[in-house]
Amino acid sequence: MSSPGSAVPPSAPSSGRGPFPAGPIRLGPKSGAALVLAAAEVSAGFWFTRREVNARTSIPQGPGLLESAGNLQNLRVAAGTAEGAFRGDYPFMDSDVYKWLEAASWQLSRRPPEDGGRLAAEVERIVSLVADAPQPDGYLNTWFQLLDKGERYANLRWSHELYCAGHLMQAAVAHHRATGRTELLDVAVRFADHIDSVFGPPGSGKPIDGIDAHPEVETALVELYRETGERRYLDLAGYFVDRFGHGLHGGEAYCQDRVPVREATSVEGHAVRQLYLLAGVTDLATETGDTGLRAAAERLWEDMTRTRTHITGGLGARHDGEAFGSPYELPNDRAYCETCAAIASVQWSLRMALLTGEARYSDLIERTLYNGFLSGVSLDGERWLYVNPLQVRDGHTDTDGDQAARRTRWFRCACCPPNVMRLLASLEHYLASADADGLQIHQYVTGRYTAHLDGAPVTVRAETDYPWRGTIALTVEQAPADRSWTLSLRVPRWCDAFRVHSGGTVHDSADAPVSEGWLRLRGPWAPGDRITLELSMRPRLTAADPRVDAVRGCVAIERGPLVHCLEGVDHPGGLDDIVLDPTRPLTEKHRPDLLGGVTTITAAGHRRRITDPGWWPYTSQGSPTPATDGEPVELTAIPYYAWANRGDGAMRVWLPTR
Amino acid sequence: MSSPGSAVPPSAPSSGRGPFPAGPIRLGPKSGAALVLAAAEVSAGFWFTRREVNARTSIPQGPGLLESAGNLQNLRVAAGTAEGAFRGDYPFMDSDVYKWLEAASWQLSRRPPEDGGRLAAEVERIVSLVADAPQPDGYLNTWFQLLDKGERYANLRWSHELYCAGHLMQAAVAHHRATGRTELLDVAVRFADHIDSVFGPPGSGKPIDGIDAHPEVETALVELYRETGERRYLDLAGYFVDRFGHGLHGGEAYCQDRVPVREATSVEGHAVRQLYLLAGVTDLATETGDTGLRAAAERLWEDMTRTRTHITGGLGARHDGEAFGSPYELPNDRAYCETCAAIASVQWSLRMALLTGEARYSDLIERTLYNGFLSGVSLDGERWLYVNPLQVRDGHTDTDGDQAARRTRWFRCACCPPNVMRLLASLEHYLASADADGLQIHQYVTGRYTAHLDGAPVTVRAETDYPWRGTIALTVEQAPADRSWTLSLRVPRWCDAFRVHSGGTVHDSADAPVSEGWLRLRGPWAPGDRITLELSMRPRLTAADPRVDAVRGCVAIERGPLVHCLEGVDHPGGLDDIVLDPTRPLTEKHRPDLLGGVTTITAAGHRRRITDPGWWPYTSQGSPTPATDGEPVELTAIPYYAWANRGDGAMRVWLPTR
Repeated sequence: MSSPGSAVPPSAPSSGRGPFPAGPIRLGPKSGAALVLAAAEVSAGFWFTRREVNARTSIPQGPGLLESAGNLQNLRVAAGTAEGAFRGDYPFMDSDVYKWLEAASWQLSRRPPEDGGRLAAEVERIVSLVADAPQPDGYLNTWFQLLDKGERYANLRWSHELYCAGHLMQAAVAHHRATGRTELLDVAVRFADHIDSVFGPPGSGKPIDGIDAHPEVETALVELYRETGERRYLDLAGYFVDRFGHGLHGGEAYCQDRVPVREATSVEGHAVRQLYLLAGVTDLATETGDTGLRAAAERLWEDMTRTRTHITGGLGARHDGEAFGSPYELPNDRAYCETCAAIASVQWSLRMALLTGEARYSDLIERTLYNGFLSGVSLDGERWLYVNPLQVRDGHTDTDGDQAARRTRWFRCACCPPNVMRLLASLEHYLASADADGLQIHQYVTGRYTAHLDGAPVTVRAETDYPWRGTIALTVEQAPADRSWTLSLRVPRWCDAFRVHSGGTVHDSADAPVSEGWLRLRGPWAPGDRITLELSMRPRLTAADPRVDAVRGCVAIERGPLVHCLEGVDHPGGLDDIVLDPTRPLTEKHRPDLLGGVTTITAAGHRRRITDPGWWPYTSQGSPTPATDGEPVELTAIPYYAWANRGDGAMRVWLPTR
Repeated sequence: MSSPGSAVPPSAPSSGRGPFPAGPIRLGPKSGAALVLAAAEVSAGFWFTRREVNARTSIPQGPGLLESAGNLQNLRVAAGTAEGAFRGDYPFMDSDVYKWLEAASWQLSRRPPEDGGRLAAEVERIVSLVADAPQPDGYLNTWFQLLDKGERYANLRWSHELYCAGHLMQAAVAHHRATGRTELLDVAVRFADHIDSVFGPPGSGKPIDGIDAHPEVETALVELYRETGERRYLDLAGYFVDRFGHGLHGGEAYCQDRVPVREATSVEGHAVRQLYLLAGVTDLATETGDTGLRAAAERLWEDMTRTRTHITGGLGARHDGEAFGSPYELPNDRAYCETCAAIASVQWSLRMALLTGEARYSDLIERTLYNGFLSGVSLDGERWLYVNPLQVRDGHTDTDGDQAARRTRWFRCACCPPNVMRLLASLEHYLASADADGLQIHQYVTGRYTAHLDGAPVTVRAETDYPWRGTIALTVEQAPADRSWTLSLRVPRWCDAFRVHSGGTVHDSADAPVSEGWLRLRGPWAPGDRITLELSMRPRLTAADPRVDAVRGCVAIERGPLVHCLEGVDHPGGLDDIVLDPTRPLTEKHRPDLLGGVTTITAAGHRRRITDPGWWPYTSQGSPTPATDGEPVELTAIPYYAWANRGDGAMRVWLPTR
């Protein structure tokens, strides 16, 4: 065991990738990725608890909800084993089933069958429903089989046929990995072959030159290529990606059709569509080495993160079109931030992290997971948010299309709940990576991270109370005796001070070998070596770039990776008149009794006394602020992810300071 | 001629209303209105110019645009005089024709036919097209006559059938008043009788208990009642108004169906729908004395104005659903503020002004006319804004559904342009009123105001350069010799200082007889008496109620009734980094050469120097403002209504002060 070594440059991709079991991103043989996924397990702590709820409540409730909403019955009717009309309002009802199957499959790949095999049986039952439903040529979409027969591929702007196919492929890959069974993979492969026989560029002899206006099949086809080795799927994904932006959907930004992705300079249009497309773009860049696609992905990720990302990691500022807004259009009160967009962002950023090796992608993943993603599911795993706003005013009442302030059991458009389930069930894919020189830990959990260096296993055990405490205790459990390697620890961008103990040596933020967000600790390492990373979790006030007009004069309270918020239930006088005093200290307190155990932050503030403006709320006095300081008030901030778990009510992330 | 008299209490309604020629609000015999419309003419100045452009450009171009868009051809095909398919995307295409006919009719009622009778001929030509189109029972809607035959009244959530009928009725009233001809009135009456034979409450024997999800027919039926004396139309309007809020449209706020209007405490849902409904509510309260409806209208107007009105008078904060937002949800950057909502607000507020006699309603009318309404039409009268935002960022590019930054020749949904035309053509209806005790001047123009007191004419001539100058010179031209009466002048709410000269006496804001916005000058008056009102037009900085989160730390520049804005074209370095220094004086300059002649306001400011935040736009430093003062910059503010007349570009109403 040595002292922490010096920083090392990013390594070339490992040529000897081991049999990493996890994840859709099992890279192809000629991948240009800097990193490959490493195996990880989560055995206790914050995410363990969230995943337990997912495994014990959310996922098991899925089949019942899919039955009530009609999704499963649609498959039976399509198969001819039941009679009835199509149920549901959308042609993407099938995708909810596929996302649930993907979630359940990832769950099966991990969970010892302590449920008596019930989940496995449910999965096989529903896989059978799916397997019985396709038409003889492999086509599968119950809407078009039952409702609009003969309209196949006739309205790709709206039909979601390839979108659904993509989710089928992703589910099939997960099911195959988890169970080794091929029933679902066969369905996906037959459908993919059918799509490949139908879609192609002019001159290809294929009947349709077209794209689904909702991207998803692109990344899924690359995953199917990785699973099957069938190069045609990769080529088909490449064809689809490059057909966006050429007017096949009227040039609509909503459909990602305004500009070719290679030429795009900013994210735009429907956020989930943009992000799924960019996941596919990054997959293609990774597998083919296409430098134009890589440059576009890097450019668009930076544009998005720098100018269009809410502090929670939430994406898509606009309700109208569920869309990205202009640069710095990041409203507090009407942030849309669809849960699915947060999920898509995490999926895309992981692909960028592997392709580039850069830590910043995992910084955004961390922020999104702990905030704008996790807010999408209630602590009990039974209720969901589709929209994740940063503010709900006092006395807010829901009106049409504006149910952001209430958690809901299911949705007419139920894309988000099974999407949350599949991300939580596959969370271990987002935690660590490897290259020829060592192991990189991207996210801190209590558990184990395992890589293979030239075939030799490297295992590091971690124990931490993260995100409540900043101490991560790492122990090397396996390491090759004959070579040095680098353990890389991501130092989160939010962290302004840390210490690392290793082999009797201590470094801090001033002298530790940190490069571009990676703390690089060079071995050799031996089993039993211990490294302790201590990240300062001092609560902090955060301000936005002054160009974010909507939160001028405001701060947010953060601690570690968590964004905090005030909730009405903790402030009986309401939130709308509260002003935070930024000169007073923040204090923290861990409350095991509250919201499943959270650290709250207390700040000092006061309530504004507002001069009654009468019937007109604008005043032209000398003072631009027709309000004076009123009674002092103690502010209690909880983690944002935990909001809306104590009934409906007001909430606020950004707090005025004057 | 006497000196200014003392304030007098609001008078009881005049029992001896004279033959006022103008406007849809020719009140019924038992009206409960405090005031009645007085006649007015505009002979020079600001609105004269805008109306000339409307008369010489906008209105004459209407028939050609309605022909190109298919509206007129639809009428011919419905009449069987032409063949072809329905053109246009919406079932309310006919209403564009009706609104144009209404505009042209008001225009005819005013304009000496210096155009050789061309407009009159166009009106009669298009009236003939309309008159030929109805079905034998009086029903008229070309969409349902041509496209969805047999689907009459089957989908009132979407069909706009009664909405179109309402606009037909309003056009017919205007046409009848202007020309004395009955061709169009006959069509409207037959359709109204048809609707009355079909719609009614359960138990009425009428086949349909229903409402159009887009209100409009309610106010129109009251106008038709006023024109024809047919009480059934008033009763039918009352039935419709009280059927909202009972779940006939699924309880959707968008359709004004969430809560009965008598119980509503806040405006909500689609802004134009809400406002047209409230115009009808106020019409009913006026004609029937219904105190429940009156109380609802007063309550909702105050809620709207106090908490949901943009500084421009613009209404409807949300793009999503074209809807009112939560209280104080008044975004600068994404204000929707549909032009039609501004028009509907003006129409409703006039009804409130007459019903109550209160000046504040005309304060809102003034603000809306000069700002959020007038911005809807270009200075040349040829291009239109559907949405009237308060900010367009530097480098803004239009994407789907977001064409707010560009004036457009016509729209697929072309509700706004002919709506602007009809309001401008009927503007004299909004200028003055009378009661038994005298004349009230609501809006200041160069022209004449005429009322009748017990049958005797009272005429006041006005000359003014308003809104560029605050001096209004009034001369009594006609007055009864045998009685005293009160000349009431509205002192705008924005005005903090004024003087009034009358009969050698001068009063100022400290000692003038002002009560609730009315400066009451008691006569007797004689022809030749002169009154001069001088309103201070000092430019001012205006701040919003601190609960308007979106513009915290910002001010707007105002002068008189005009809200000002910065435009990119005047600030080559862009607008996004500009900070205004509120401690430095504002200076004004009239620029006859600019934008048809405007007074610009100059302010001092600087450009922020922003610390490059890298890829993440939030910082947790001690200072909440990662920006420092940069180069000084002189800011030039133009009136908001004149923006987007010098090409596309950035614009900003609210300006940060730090």
